[in-house]
Amino acid sequence: MPDSLLVNLNERSYEIRFGGRLTEAVQGTVRELRETGKAVAVLTDANIASRLGAELTAMFGDAPRCVVAAGEGAKSLAGLGTVLEFLAEKRIDRGGVLFAVGGGVIGDLGGFAAASYLRGISFYQVPTTLLAMVDSSVGGKTGINLAAGKNLAGAFHQPKGVFIATDLLRTLPAREFAAGMAEVIKYGLLGEAALFERLERSPLTVASDDLAAVIRRCCAIKAKIVEADERELAREGGRALLNLGHTFGHAIEQAAGYGEYLHGEAIAIGLVAAARLSHRLGLVPESVIGRVERVLAAHALPVRLSAPLPLATLMAAVARDKKVRGGLPRFVVLNRVGEAATRDGVPAELAEECFRSVGSAAR
Amino acid sequence: MPDSLLVNLNERSYEIRFGGRLTEAVQGTVRELRETGKAVAVLTDANIASRLGAELTAMFGDAPRCVVAAGEGAKSLAGLGTVLEFLAEKRIDRGGVLFAVGGGVIGDLGGFAAASYLRGISFYQVPTTLLAMVDSSVGGKTGINLAAGKNLAGAFHQPKGVFIATDLLRTLPAREFAAGMAEVIKYGLLGEAALFERLERSPLTVASDDLAAVIRRCCAIKAKIVEADERELAREGGRALLNLGHTFGHAIEQAAGYGEYLHGEAIAIGLVAAARLSHRLGLVPESVIGRVERVLAAHALPVRLSAPLPLATLMAAVARDKKVRGGLPRFVVLNRVGEAATRDGVPAELAEECFRSVGSAAR
Repeated sequence: MPDSLLVNLNERSYEIRFGGRLTEAVQGTVRELRETGKAVAVLTDANIASRLGAELTAMFGDAPRCVVAAGEGAKSLAGLGTVLEFLAEKRIDRGGVLFAVGGGVIGDLGGFAAASYLRGISFYQVPTTLLAMVDSSVGGKTGINLAAGKNLAGAFHQPKGVFIATDLLRTLPAREFAAGMAEVIKYGLLGEAALFERLERSPLTVASDDLAAVIRRCCAIKAKIVEADERELAREGGRALLNLGHTFGHAIEQAAGYGEYLHGEAIAIGLVAAARLSHRLGLVPESVIGRVERVLAAHALPVRLSAPLPLATLMAAVARDKKVRGGLPRFVVLNRVGEAATRDGVPAELAEECFRSVGSAAR
Repeated sequence: MPDSLLVNLNERSYEIRFGGRLTEAVQGTVRELRETGKAVAVLTDANIASRLGAELTAMFGDAPRCVVAAGEGAKSLAGLGTVLEFLAEKRIDRGGVLFAVGGGVIGDLGGFAAASYLRGISFYQVPTTLLAMVDSSVGGKTGINLAAGKNLAGAFHQPKGVFIATDLLRTLPAREFAAGMAEVIKYGLLGEAALFERLERSPLTVASDDLAAVIRRCCAIKAKIVEADERELAREGGRALLNLGHTFGHAIEQAAGYGEYLHGEAIAIGLVAAARLSHRLGLVPESVIGRVERVLAAHALPVRLSAPLPLATLMAAVARDKKVRGGLPRFVVLNRVGEAATRDGVPAELAEECFRSVGSAAR
């Protein structure tokens, strides 16, 4: 029996199953759904369709498949239209179920399509990247990018279940595995010192015996936070804590132009900046910055910008961040390794100093 | 003080205000929102912007306005994109509020945009058609059309408030007022015999003293149904009752090609067909069919197709209806004037007979 974790959200509760190979578990769920008269449809991208074609067929047989182009471009209004029209064309009714098989883009897009199609059908996630496994499979945030910015439209829509099969990571490019590690390290920093220390002892790799167990710990940390603040309404702390490193990281992604850094790479640099901010606010000793840098580097992640970015552009991106409330950017800081807090009213000069410390240009 | 009605949906409860003129009431709400730091934005269409331009300025001052083309075309993925990008461009944040001023298209589109933008911001409705006043302002169903069919994508998203100002109907074209009356008559049939009898006594017009009171009764009937079944999950009855005449009516709209009949006109013919179905199932005397026809005709509504439509096309449209569950179409029938019920397993021959009775071709 595969290990599992219950995400407890009352009538929206669901189970995450963990294992090396979960093909039979997915098959079983698909069979059960069909036996109760529910139509099953699959969303994936062209990369996954070619990389995991045999696996997809084993899991879903002849269920209709919507294959979108790989990459962030699918996470758009046009991509949403493609999935919605596909579901309508295949005559999926309100009892139908969508399986989203892929990375974060597919999970976010599939979840939003499922939330919107006929005002909401069920969906399951089969994440195929480390990032999607630790991040997108818990929380119910779904959405697409607009021309004006990332993740600006979407819905809260919880999956009915998630299958985390770490064997699927064996064909994942090393750079993408590393990018996912940035979020794993983030979970240690914000929620569990023992997890951070595990990562300090030796790098986690696709071959690590405890890979599934580590992913499970990340999901458990996120689940606990989401359970307490499902719709991100907490005035302090709550879901916002999951944005540790993200206010800096998003600004870096945006200023560099999307595609320059993988999301996880920008977050890695953002975590270093957040550690510095926490130190400068007197919350953690300077040694924490070094620990964060070392663990990131040990996981093949950048700790500084590869080329300077204009400080003004970075600060403008921070100001545009949708987590801004009442005009003031909000940062997540470390109280210590394993515990984070939200922090409003950070002086602009301090944020600038943190950007400079990771390699921003002076202006 | 204007009359009001509370739609009771726990933490999603809201108030509908009724009156001839509600400009000051809207102004007051806009002022209060702004005083608490909330950005206000307005969605409307080109017709309303020209027909009610002064009124819009009085209500919203210089609040940013998104003006889409009038007509059903705006209720599309492209229209959704326009509104979402507008909100992003105007830097509306999570505390922002969208006012949808217009008919059903604007209410449905604006509601879905508000539901999706930043995963949900608040919205208010200011309906400008009779149809939108009695139908779209209660229930929280928002959405857009797909290429594959109407209302196939959307969200349940309750407004924070609705302003029903019947003076806005004075410039509404007569044909559109009549189309709205089809839904008013529907509410009498499915929920309140006394309302139906009121309409039998003398036609309701834009000049009727009791116009606001009649609209309020329709909203109250719908509110009661929605309160008991917010997300249309009831196995029988529930929100589905609101579809009285709609399974037939939608098929007529679709078979004739959208634009041939106004929605309300197709529903009018659908109500006659539903009355016949109810009679043929032994639920109501034949006289009810005549009563339904007379009250519709007295309100300038059609009771038969203006030109025959192929029966096969109509039946195919019924089979495609998204209210189909497990392959069988579901109809709403009358138990008596003032009370409706859902009915599954209606034989195809009987549905065909009802279509023929309102003027369908033999095949």
